[in-house]
Amino acid sequence: MKTKRAKNYGFCFGVKRAIQLAEQNRNAITIGPLIHNQKEIDRLKFNFGVNVESDITKINKDSKVIIRTHGIPKNDLQALNDANRDVVDATCPYVKKPQQICEQMSNEGYEIVIFGDKEHPEIKGVASYCTSNYQIILDKADITGLNSHSKVAIISQTTKNVRAFLEIVHFLVEHCYEVRVFNTICNATFDNQESAEILAKEVDIMIVVGGKQSSNTKQLLNISSKFCKDSYCIEDENELQDEWFKGKSLCGITAGASTPDWIIDKVEQKIRNLQP
Amino acid sequence: MKTKRAKNYGFCFGVKRAIQLAEQNRNAITIGPLIHNQKEIDRLKFNFGVNVESDITKINKDSKVIIRTHGIPKNDLQALNDANRDVVDATCPYVKKPQQICEQMSNEGYEIVIFGDKEHPEIKGVASYCTSNYQIILDKADITGLNSHSKVAIISQTTKNVRAFLEIVHFLVEHCYEVRVFNTICNATFDNQESAEILAKEVDIMIVVGGKQSSNTKQLLNISSKFCKDSYCIEDENELQDEWFKGKSLCGITAGASTPDWIIDKVEQKIRNLQP
Repeated sequence: MKTKRAKNYGFCFGVKRAIQLAEQNRNAITIGPLIHNQKEIDRLKFNFGVNVESDITKINKDSKVIIRTHGIPKNDLQALNDANRDVVDATCPYVKKPQQICEQMSNEGYEIVIFGDKEHPEIKGVASYCTSNYQIILDKADITGLNSHSKVAIISQTTKNVRAFLEIVHFLVEHCYEVRVFNTICNATFDNQESAEILAKEVDIMIVVGGKQSSNTKQLLNISSKFCKDSYCIEDENELQDEWFKGKSLCGITAGASTPDWIIDKVEQKIRNLQP
Repeated sequence: MKTKRAKNYGFCFGVKRAIQLAEQNRNAITIGPLIHNQKEIDRLKFNFGVNVESDITKINKDSKVIIRTHGIPKNDLQALNDANRDVVDATCPYVKKPQQICEQMSNEGYEIVIFGDKEHPEIKGVASYCTSNYQIILDKADITGLNSHSKVAIISQTTKNVRAFLEIVHFLVEHCYEVRVFNTICNATFDNQESAEILAKEVDIMIVVGGKQSSNTKQLLNISSKFCKDSYCIEDENELQDEWFKGKSLCGITAGASTPDWIIDKVEQKIRNLQP
């Protein structure tokens, strides 16, 4: 079976950086999983002694603490610093940015609209930097309390869709006096999506490699399915099923932003060995 | 012939205010025509001695100077003040606002994008308040020199269409780091357009009363024509033609933002006296 990888796929800049930091800090503890990929978490534990602890109060006082790519709430970071903990901040710089914007816009008296999922750790972290009024919304219908005198700043969860973000911007521009738009959507997510679409159009079957919990992996599967009906999501090569490939000749491969290359390599190798 | 007026039509707040100021300042000089309606200019001259002079250097030193609704460039206003001229500022507050925004955003180091017509006096005035980089554009294709690090402030000519404005905002949000959007589009223009559309759908013939040079009058005619094919633009009742009304029973009436009520009254009276 022939294979073709998407032009852009897999790890983004922020994840590569976080893994590098973990590898450089053996035996450190990450607050929650560093990235959304259990196999990579296992590799870091096995090869570098990096462990996961979700409860901040349970972390051994002598361990280095790694803050994961999504960031953590301001108060938690403050508590770690106040306790003189040895903190390695692996928060993605593209997530730091909306945190800083929320803090600055609060100081300047703007009402803040955050386009994102209330329950996502990135958004919990980002919102914690707002000191003035803010609202976390997914749809313009959720927006409340604004009027034609309102001065609003809007940011987005880094992994959201730009078109949906622009719909919210539309609504705000039509209803508010001033709208300060910070496009905090990360291009990496975007580039992977665009590449998946292009590839899905030219292959017979698409394999999306990524964690079942990863929202950007789900989006890649959705996009692939639109343009190639035989699209499947797997976590590793063991989930591949021979019957998917019957009668196919070209298999496209893409991967979520938290999927390490070594997993993608194994998947590709196994597909290449299949008989079409 | 029965008639029905649009819910909103004619003079906006800024024009009403400018005429009031002209009436209160007999024998003053306006720099350029106060509004885009020759008959109202004639009335102000005949009843209140208010004259028009386009060349600022030719204005009699003892005359009061009225600045018209569209505003004038910053340097011209400065020159009048430096010469201790008695200035009555009839610039529409909705035009003052984008002037102030351009000044403030320049001071804060934003690149300024002005959505409007380069040759329109309002835009010449507004742009004169920019002290940093600015560009006047009508289409996103005209935008130059911006990148993903750009901090941009955008304003609109008060009479522009909000959808077209939002298209430019879209483009900027997709391409720049921060976009500060000031929706300086005036609702009055909007309200008149919306009311014209609603009325045009229910009548047999539409009469749009307004100056031939007025851009908002032209827009009202365009909108009316879309929903009522027998739509006509006239400057006063003398331009009405009997044959337009043959076989019609209900005539809708709207008017541009610079059309005084006394002209609309005369038009309506004449139409009412027509036999359908």
